Amino acid sequence: MSEVQVLLEPQYTVKIEQNLLERVQVPHARVALIADETAAKYHLTKLVASLEAGGSSVKVFTVPSGEACKNLDVFAKLLSSLALEGLTRDAAIVALGGGATSDLAGYVAASYLRGIAFYVCPTTLLAMVDASVGGKTGVNLIEGKNLVGAFHQPKGVFASLETLSTLPERTFREGAAEAFKHGLIANPALMQPILEPGFNAESSNLETFLKAVIQVKADVVAIDPFEKHQRAFLNYGHTLAHALEAVTVHKLPHGEAVGYGMHYAAIVGKILGYEDVTGHTKAFLNYQQPSKLPNLGFGDVEPFMARDKKADSEGVRFVMLHEIAKPNLERVRREVLLEAWDEFKILF
Amino acid sequence: MSEVQVLLEPQYTVKIEQNLLERVQVPHARVALIADETAAKYHLTKLVASLEAGGSSVKVFTVPSGEACKNLDVFAKLLSSLALEGLTRDAAIVALGGGATSDLAGYVAASYLRGIAFYVCPTTLLAMVDASVGGKTGVNLIEGKNLVGAFHQPKGVFASLETLSTLPERTFREGAAEAFKHGLIANPALMQPILEPGFNAESSNLETFLKAVIQVKADVVAIDPFEKHQRAFLNYGHTLAHALEAVTVHKLPHGEAVGYGMHYAAIVGKILGYEDVTGHTKAFLNYQQPSKLPNLGFGDVEPFMARDKKADSEGVRFVMLHEIAKPNLERVRREVLLEAWDEFKILF
Repeated sequence: MSEVQVLLEPQYTVKIEQNLLERVQVPHARVALIADETAAKYHLTKLVASLEAGGSSVKVFTVPSGEACKNLDVFAKLLSSLALEGLTRDAAIVALGGGATSDLAGYVAASYLRGIAFYVCPTTLLAMVDASVGGKTGVNLIEGKNLVGAFHQPKGVFASLETLSTLPERTFREGAAEAFKHGLIANPALMQPILEPGFNAESSNLETFLKAVIQVKADVVAIDPFEKHQRAFLNYGHTLAHALEAVTVHKLPHGEAVGYGMHYAAIVGKILGYEDVTGHTKAFLNYQQPSKLPNLGFGDVEPFMARDKKADSEGVRFVMLHEIAKPNLERVRREVLLEAWDEFKILF
Repeated sequence: MSEVQVLLEPQYTVKIEQNLLERVQVPHARVALIADETAAKYHLTKLVASLEAGGSSVKVFTVPSGEACKNLDVFAKLLSSLALEGLTRDAAIVALGGGATSDLAGYVAASYLRGIAFYVCPTTLLAMVDASVGGKTGVNLIEGKNLVGAFHQPKGVFASLETLSTLPERTFREGAAEAFKHGLIANPALMQPILEPGFNAESSNLETFLKAVIQVKADVVAIDPFEKHQRAFLNYGHTLAHALEAVTVHKLPHGEAVGYGMHYAAIVGKILGYEDVTGHTKAFLNYQQPSKLPNLGFGDVEPFMARDKKADSEGVRFVMLHEIAKPNLERVRREVLLEAWDEFKILF
């Protein structure tokens, strides 16, 4: 087993290992297990068995897979269900599924009775390397992605590696975007393994690789839990990504949107005279093979970029790489964004 | 002007004075002003004028008065409206109205973009002495009162005393329940002024009195902001009160429910052999003259008491006064609750 400590108050541990779901136990008499349909199909029985073996009484709530669960309607229904079950402040929520599921479940945990304990069992690469660590929880509005939520740290994260093999390779490649991003903004050594032939859910070095990727996130989050400064760097590529997700009504999955978004950010950086990382982001897109984008104009994405959470009253701010692993949050002029859009559009 | 400092990180100030609304200014370029209909009718123009004079651009959102606004539907609509307005993280929400309005507006502020700045202009006695101080925000579920929410401290509270005179005296007497409760649990000298003939919104000593009442809450909140221990004492009388509100679908106003709830808690305490404070709680009800209760049985309120936030997996917990100003949080046996209910019922 590998472990990453997230050094917050209170500290928590991300455990990474094959077949960890068979040993997940939590110190709570009552557990509400919020599982997405896909993860439930493969993993629910064994997770419930291990929680019950640990002495917890478990009530299961199944939600649609992916972004379809991540809205205020599902949020409201879950809260009412928890209340009808009579769950009290000493109960816990355990999330089983992808990043959307843990974002939703974490926000429910943050909100029910003004906050109860929360654990995550991520079943996608994206959730393992990004969503389940750091306490960002929330849901989408029609007006934009992740516009509502709370910071609510989990008490523990259980990344059970065999779950990755139950999903299409496309889902694995989707999640690789966040791992590649951690490489770009903080640890360049993490980029190459992703681009090597045969990198997939069965790769023999996956546990060690994921430990290093998750360490990047844990380090940033420990320095800046509430995104006052450095934590925003984890949003590299996300300003356009969130806009692409919103404008396609989440038909484009988050990790693919981030793949595109990193490449767009790289083009913006090149125009501004920073280190040209477009070769790397293009290589990543070649590996990822994301869905084709619809025929969008800059005017389609601009209103969503303006509502990005990094914006302030003076305008949109982008994470830029002055060099690889030297990120910075800065305002970018609209002409530059437009010029970058023209170059970005040619490629797809 | 009187001021109470709430010694949290960051610290904030509760200002108490006549005609304070004419001087409310906040350091934010953009403000979303969430006002209840009643407060808007009397006070909106002057508050908008003072915010604008301070350099803020103000967008007004009006919500129904009282608990009618305090649900996830209104919450969701406000969040979408803020997103459509393009409000960014440096914007602020200002609440104008009663406790339900500030609870809702504070929860919107806690949730939008995972948290933006929040200011309160309470216009009812209840909001001034209780709801607007301490950062408890949230909404109700059909399943029970205040079951969803967040801790989100305001950056400032402006209690403008002339607003109290625009409301029915019944609303003033309603809010007096929370002031009386602060007396019972922490500062007995605060009880007598309320019971003196002619205590109302025009009382000459009101500013000084409110300062002392708010100081009780500020002291408790500073010691225990997240209700791990002492803060629960502020819930004296609230276990039955929340149940009465839920079972009457909020026809019984919060302060009147607290009036009844304190008396019920006092009867429970008397049965348990603690100092008999039923004389005080009965005197308060004589002053308050709350609405008549419907013909409820213990079975009607028990399920709602079981969902009280102070409950844990072993059962419901009540705040009990071992003596005046000596509160304690403890489990109470069902037989005692039933016996107390029989005595409580006779009186109404």
